[in-house]
Amino acid sequence: MKLRIKKEELKSGISIAERIASRSISLPILKNISIKAEKDLINISATDLEIGVEWWGSAKTDKTGELVVPSSILSGFINLLPDAEIELTSNKEDLNINCSNYNTQIKGFNPEEFPIIPEVAEKESVLVDIQYLCKSLSCVVDIPTFSTTRPEISGILFKFDKNILKIVATDSYRLGEKTIKLNSSVKNPFFFILPQKSAKEIISIFGETEGDIRIVFGANQVLFELLMTNIKHPKIRLISRQIEGDYPNYEEIIPKKNQITAILERSDLLNQIKAAGLFSGKSGEVIFKIEPTKNKIEIVSQNPEAGEYNSTLLGKITGKKETISFNYRYLVDGILSIKTSEVLFEINSSSEPGVLKPTKGIDFLYIIMPIKA
Amino acid sequence: MKLRIKKEELKSGISIAERIASRSISLPILKNISIKAEKDLINISATDLEIGVEWWGSAKTDKTGELVVPSSILSGFINLLPDAEIELTSNKEDLNINCSNYNTQIKGFNPEEFPIIPEVAEKESVLVDIQYLCKSLSCVVDIPTFSTTRPEISGILFKFDKNILKIVATDSYRLGEKTIKLNSSVKNPFFFILPQKSAKEIISIFGETEGDIRIVFGANQVLFELLMTNIKHPKIRLISRQIEGDYPNYEEIIPKKNQITAILERSDLLNQIKAAGLFSGKSGEVIFKIEPTKNKIEIVSQNPEAGEYNSTLLGKITGKKETISFNYRYLVDGILSIKTSEVLFEINSSSEPGVLKPTKGIDFLYIIMPIKA
Repeated sequence: MKLRIKKEELKSGISIAERIASRSISLPILKNISIKAEKDLINISATDLEIGVEWWGSAKTDKTGELVVPSSILSGFINLLPDAEIELTSNKEDLNINCSNYNTQIKGFNPEEFPIIPEVAEKESVLVDIQYLCKSLSCVVDIPTFSTTRPEISGILFKFDKNILKIVATDSYRLGEKTIKLNSSVKNPFFFILPQKSAKEIISIFGETEGDIRIVFGANQVLFELLMTNIKHPKIRLISRQIEGDYPNYEEIIPKKNQITAILERSDLLNQIKAAGLFSGKSGEVIFKIEPTKNKIEIVSQNPEAGEYNSTLLGKITGKKETISFNYRYLVDGILSIKTSEVLFEINSSSEPGVLKPTKGIDFLYIIMPIKA
Repeated sequence: MKLRIKKEELKSGISIAERIASRSISLPILKNISIKAEKDLINISATDLEIGVEWWGSAKTDKTGELVVPSSILSGFINLLPDAEIELTSNKEDLNINCSNYNTQIKGFNPEEFPIIPEVAEKESVLVDIQYLCKSLSCVVDIPTFSTTRPEISGILFKFDKNILKIVATDSYRLGEKTIKLNSSVKNPFFFILPQKSAKEIISIFGETEGDIRIVFGANQVLFELLMTNIKHPKIRLISRQIEGDYPNYEEIIPKKNQITAILERSDLLNQIKAAGLFSGKSGEVIFKIEPTKNKIEIVSQNPEAGEYNSTLLGKITGKKETISFNYRYLVDGILSIKTSEVLFEINSSSEPGVLKPTKGIDFLYIIMPIKA
């Protein structure tokens, strides 16, 4: 193997592969990344057996071949190099790097020991704007908590029907649902459950890129693929396993009606809930005393060790008088995912879930269970 | 107690006191801060018994008094308030805070349980520009390592003689000495050893301030005092204990002569040493093969697990041919404290300490022990 590549180009590929390689602790070979010299291209890949990533960049290839080297030492070294052309040459299993007056040899491993990144047998695929997908995923990605008894809610549901993709996450205390409009319709409805860490890597790896990403649905895996801008060749591919099982029928818990609606200024609501949270103790309980006739909500919290909080929030409120308690942390998470300057808060009674929504668009829904008295 | 103060003013005072209060784990009362309403002023203080800080800000005082409240909850709450006037009122031992539509009561403690910040019996004092002092301290503050057997080198030596202040730190493998010119001379030479964490707090607390700081030397304590810009009243005072004992006679180890001098480009030297460090293994050993006749240094490192590094650094080099090894981490630290674009590296032999210096000015000296073969 022998190729030449610009430093910045190589650095961007290694940084993507390193994200996946550096997480592996069980199997030492997974701490490595694979470098392949192809015709006019370099391919860099890594896997932790749950997620695989592949990246391609342009290179001047003198001799094709493959090498497997430790990701941390390669990444650390490349970052220190001047902004110039780098020559990568194989020396048996080792990698020689020459750039300006920096010369090094990194000890490598037998490429045959490195796991193969699986191909996805395509059942169906859709195209989505990558920025739109990453921003939508960000609204729900932190909601799941790891559960061994209910592995399906440890992941994020991707539910496709006609030209609608719904991305859903819950930890059984709250649930977020983001709706994405696709440019074309899928033939048959389908869904998959993506592991939370795969979703986080998608946001990190594709968050700074542009264009349409192709989501390819397979039997046990999902592929997220971004093409190069100039030629029809993959630029980045992320292959993730799916979580097996059925997602709970969450649509049942979405309230069909609402007896109280409150339109509240977002930043004021957020700050008041955070402030009340400081005095809420371990339970995180913050009490909302809703008075529609006065168009105000009194926000109250107290605990004997810290003190007490009592403030008033004004808004446009309709419905009956009610007192309801929530965990302030869940409220904060929901409000942070709403980007409109006002928030719509829908409530039925002190024992039924509340719903937070943006005031414009109906593309996000956040359902939160109350703390029952 | 009753007073009114602007949010930003209060926030800046609390953030300074919180730095000290939040560190205390042994004695719960130390997690609190004291708030005193004085005439036209508010005083906020905290201590961990090793370091005490006091801060004054302007306030409209309606009633003088003192309160002691938990620093973390107060700080968290004040940060969430809108940018408006805040009213602080005592309610027995508790603190009522009112600001816009935010109202809270924080549970406080008996001020008599709060330790008194000691006064320093002044033996001698000097004035130094605070930015000059903080930047100088930054060059040596990370050098000491905690030592129970030699507590004096766990701290930083402040050595005053005539109009010169020398700030010195060592961990017995390397030593940094920064020289500061004072505007006036001290009457008699004196020194004190400041604990490393006090030095770090000085940089953090005074790093963004301006003006002359007064260093007051007492029997067991040192006071760093910054005055207000408009009136002759303290703005911030930091009182630290001194480390007892004599500092080692470090001037003995400063080489009196040098057989080899090399003038090297700083950023290139730094990057090459970092790159060589990646391949140096646990010892951190990087080998310098100095060839004055070719005006070059070959930088080499290797270990069987990672690979090997071999690069060439050009410079202006005089003296004899020599091979010498150093721990790359110590070299990196020293070079980072030198701000000139070139670095002067003085060496005698493979078993004697090397010296790094800026090429302009003689205000910084970094002595580093070689790794002996």
